[in-house]
Amino acid sequence: MLDQSGSHLTTETIQMNSFVKTDTDSHFPIQNVPFGVCQGRGGPAFCCTRIGDFVLELRALEDLGIFKQLNLETGRLFEEPSLNRFMELPQLQRALLRQSIQAALRENSPHKAALEQMLTPWSEVEPRLPAAIGDYTDFYASRWHASNVGKMFRPDGDPLLPNWLHLPVGYHGRSSSIVPSGVPVRRPKGQILPPDANSPIDAASRLLDYEFEMGAFFGGESNNIGSRIPISSAHEHIVGYVIVNDWSARDIQKWEYQPLGPFNAKNFQTSISSWIVTPEALDEFRVPQPQRSPQDPPLLEYLTPPNDQGLNIKVETWLQSQKMDEPQRISAGNFSDMWWSFEQMLAHHTSTGCPFRAGDLLASGTVSGPDKESRGCLLELTWRGSEPLQLADGSTRKFLEDGDIVTMTAFCQGNGYRIGFGELSAKVVA
Amino acid sequence: MLDQSGSHLTTETIQMNSFVKTDTDSHFPIQNVPFGVCQGRGGPAFCCTRIGDFVLELRALEDLGIFKQLNLETGRLFEEPSLNRFMELPQLQRALLRQSIQAALRENSPHKAALEQMLTPWSEVEPRLPAAIGDYTDFYASRWHASNVGKMFRPDGDPLLPNWLHLPVGYHGRSSSIVPSGVPVRRPKGQILPPDANSPIDAASRLLDYEFEMGAFFGGESNNIGSRIPISSAHEHIVGYVIVNDWSARDIQKWEYQPLGPFNAKNFQTSISSWIVTPEALDEFRVPQPQRSPQDPPLLEYLTPPNDQGLNIKVETWLQSQKMDEPQRISAGNFSDMWWSFEQMLAHHTSTGCPFRAGDLLASGTVSGPDKESRGCLLELTWRGSEPLQLADGSTRKFLEDGDIVTMTAFCQGNGYRIGFGELSAKVVA
Repeated sequence: MLDQSGSHLTTETIQMNSFVKTDTDSHFPIQNVPFGVCQGRGGPAFCCTRIGDFVLELRALEDLGIFKQLNLETGRLFEEPSLNRFMELPQLQRALLRQSIQAALRENSPHKAALEQMLTPWSEVEPRLPAAIGDYTDFYASRWHASNVGKMFRPDGDPLLPNWLHLPVGYHGRSSSIVPSGVPVRRPKGQILPPDANSPIDAASRLLDYEFEMGAFFGGESNNIGSRIPISSAHEHIVGYVIVNDWSARDIQKWEYQPLGPFNAKNFQTSISSWIVTPEALDEFRVPQPQRSPQDPPLLEYLTPPNDQGLNIKVETWLQSQKMDEPQRISAGNFSDMWWSFEQMLAHHTSTGCPFRAGDLLASGTVSGPDKESRGCLLELTWRGSEPLQLADGSTRKFLEDGDIVTMTAFCQGNGYRIGFGELSAKVVA
Repeated sequence: MLDQSGSHLTTETIQMNSFVKTDTDSHFPIQNVPFGVCQGRGGPAFCCTRIGDFVLELRALEDLGIFKQLNLETGRLFEEPSLNRFMELPQLQRALLRQSIQAALRENSPHKAALEQMLTPWSEVEPRLPAAIGDYTDFYASRWHASNVGKMFRPDGDPLLPNWLHLPVGYHGRSSSIVPSGVPVRRPKGQILPPDANSPIDAASRLLDYEFEMGAFFGGESNNIGSRIPISSAHEHIVGYVIVNDWSARDIQKWEYQPLGPFNAKNFQTSISSWIVTPEALDEFRVPQPQRSPQDPPLLEYLTPPNDQGLNIKVETWLQSQKMDEPQRISAGNFSDMWWSFEQMLAHHTSTGCPFRAGDLLASGTVSGPDKESRGCLLELTWRGSEPLQLADGSTRKFLEDGDIVTMTAFCQGNGYRIGFGELSAKVVA
C-alpha cells in the first residue's frame, strides 16, 4: 500500500521490517531507502539503493516491474549511471517510487526471492558521484560558525557582518572538483603570503582543513530564468541530503579571498558522501530552527518559512593519523543548530531569478554549534591553531597532516532504528 | 594544403578569398571561420560555422567528407547541437579541422557547388549556446577596472588590494545562468539595503549595469584533479573567444558581497556572443601585455608567460533607448589593455589542481582601459552615477532603464579585412 500523500511516514512505515536484517545501529534499515551510484570492480557504474550492508541495482528493480504501478510517463529512469533523470521527477513521484522500493523490501514482499538474488555486498562496490552536478553553491548558514570566524578575523568588530542575519550568504563553487567518498585529497600547492613576508610564494598549503557540511540535491522541474522558487514550495525541490567535506586551504584562502571570495582555497576538491537520504525518510526528524529570538531582525517574506525546516541530524567528524590504529572522534554536533535552512537558501538563491536544474547541489557551510565540541572545522576547533587538538597517538593537530584520514558521519536516531548517511572518508596525501 | 603546424597563419591564408563574397568590414571573412550553434525556426539546433552573412552546418561538412583527411579517431563530432566533442580534440586537431573548412570555402574549392547549396542566411537562424558549459569562472583582470572600482569603494586606501598584482583574482560563476545573444535580460528583484535604511527590502534592482568582458572556452584533454596546467601549454586549451556581458545588479551586489563575493548580483543572467573565434584566427593580432613596468612586482614562475599573450581586439558597447532610432556608442576600448591573460588565468585556476573539462568558460572581467571612453561598464563610465551619460534622445543614464538595448561588438582590424565577433545584444525588460 502506497502512502499517496508521499509526504509523511505512517506508523506502519516506521515499524516495518525487511527480509534483509539490520542491526539497530545500521544507517540503512528499511526506513531509509537512499539513492546512490556505485561501481563494482571492473564493471559498469549503476544507480542503486542500499539496505543494511547490501546495494540493489535500481535498473533491476525497474526490470522487475515494481515501478509500473506509478504509471511514470518518463520511460526508463535508471539506464545511465546517474540519478539526474530520477531527480527530474516531481516530488510526489520520487516519494512514491521510493515507497515502491520500500514495499518490495518488506518481510512479506512478493519480490523477496528475486531481490535476495540481486543483493550485492557494499564491500564489493565503490561509490561514484550520484549525479552530473550542473552547478554547486556553498553557503555559510551556521550562526555559530560565522560568528566564530568573525571573532577570529575581525576581533574588534561585530562578529557577524551586517547582511548575515538578513540573507543566507553563499558563493558559487566548482562542480568539477566534487568527488565521491574514498578519493584521497591531495594537499594543494598554491599562492600563499607567508606570515611577515612581503611577497607571496608558490608552495604547498600548510593550513589544510576540512569543513563538515550537509548538502542538498535539487530536483523536480527547473525554474525558468527570471523566476523564483517560493519558500513555500522549496521543499518539493529537495531530492535528498548528503554529507559534504568542503576541504579548505586556509593560507591560500587568506591571501586570495578579497574582494571576490574563496576560490583556489576551495576548488581543489570537495567530497560528498555516497547516499542521498530523502526528505521523506527524514520527515519525522524535522524540528524548529531553534536560534531565532525576538531580538533578531524579522525576515523578509520571501525567506519566512511556512513550517519547521530544521533537521535533527547528529553529525560527527573522526580523525585517524598514520600512527593511530583507529579513528578518534574530534567533533560532534547537530544539523539543527543551523540558522538558515536549505529551503531558505533555495528561495534566496532564486530570488533574482537564477535558474536551477535537476542535479544542482547546495551545501550548507560548516555545521557548528554552541559548544566547542560541536565546531565543524579545525580552524574553529583549534581557534586558528592557537589551541591544538590532542590526538590519541600523542601528537597534536593545528591543521591536517599528510596521512591523516578524515571521516565524517551523520544519522538521525529513531525509536529503535537509525536513518543515516554512512561514512564520508578521505586520506590526505602529499 | 594544410598548415601542419596548426599554429601560424601563412601569408597565403591571410590573402585567401572565398567564393562567398564579404565586404571589408564583415566580421566573418574566410580568414575567420568561427564555431557556433544555431537553430532555424521550428527546426533542430545544429553546430555551424559562419562566412559573411551565412551559416554552414558542420554535420553537412562532415557528410561531405572534408574532415576525412584528418583521420580523427573520434567518430562523428557534430551530431549533437553542442561543440563539446569538438572542444575535446587536441589543439592541433581543432586547428586542422578549421583549416579544412577554410580550404573548402576557397574560391577554387572543389566543394564550391555543394557548399553553395547549403548556405543558410544568418537572418533565418537564432544563436544557441555553443556548448554545455560545465563550470564558469569570472575574473577581474583589468588593472584599470580594478583600480577604478577600488577608488570608488575605498577612496582612502590603495585602489588595488595587496593580492591583485600577484594573482588573477576570480570567482566561480553560475553556469545555468548563461544565455545566448538576443535573450532579454529581466531586471532582477532581490534583497537590497536602500541608502540610509536600517533594514533591507525585497525590490527590483535600480542599479542594473552591464559589464563588457571577453570569454574563453576550455578545450583539449582535461587536467586530472590535483594537477596543474602549466602556463607554457595553457594556450593549447583555449578553443576560442566570445564576448561576455556580465549583467550586474550593483545595489544587490553592494549589500550581499561581503565576505564571500558577488552572488545573486550576477547569477540572474550572463549573455555570451554567438561565435567562438579561434586563437588561430587571432594569431596575427597577438601583442605584448603592455602595462607591466619595472615598478610592478615580479610574477611567480607559474604565472610568467613564455610569450606575448595580449590580443589587439577593439571592443565597443552601444546603447539604444526606447526613444532612440539607432544605437549610440557609449564606450570603445581594447582587449590588449588587460593586465592578466587567459593563459595566466588558466594557470592560476589550476594551480591548486582544480580540474577543467571541455566546454568550461572563463571570462576576463570588465575590459577597461586608461581613457574614460574605454571603461567597460556604467559603474565606471558614470563614476557610480555621479557623472551621468548623455544620450542622443536627450535623456541621461546613471544605470540601465527598462527598454534599453545593450549591444556589444568586437573585432580585430587586419590588412583589408576584419576578424570579428559579431554582435552580442539584449534588451532590458521589467
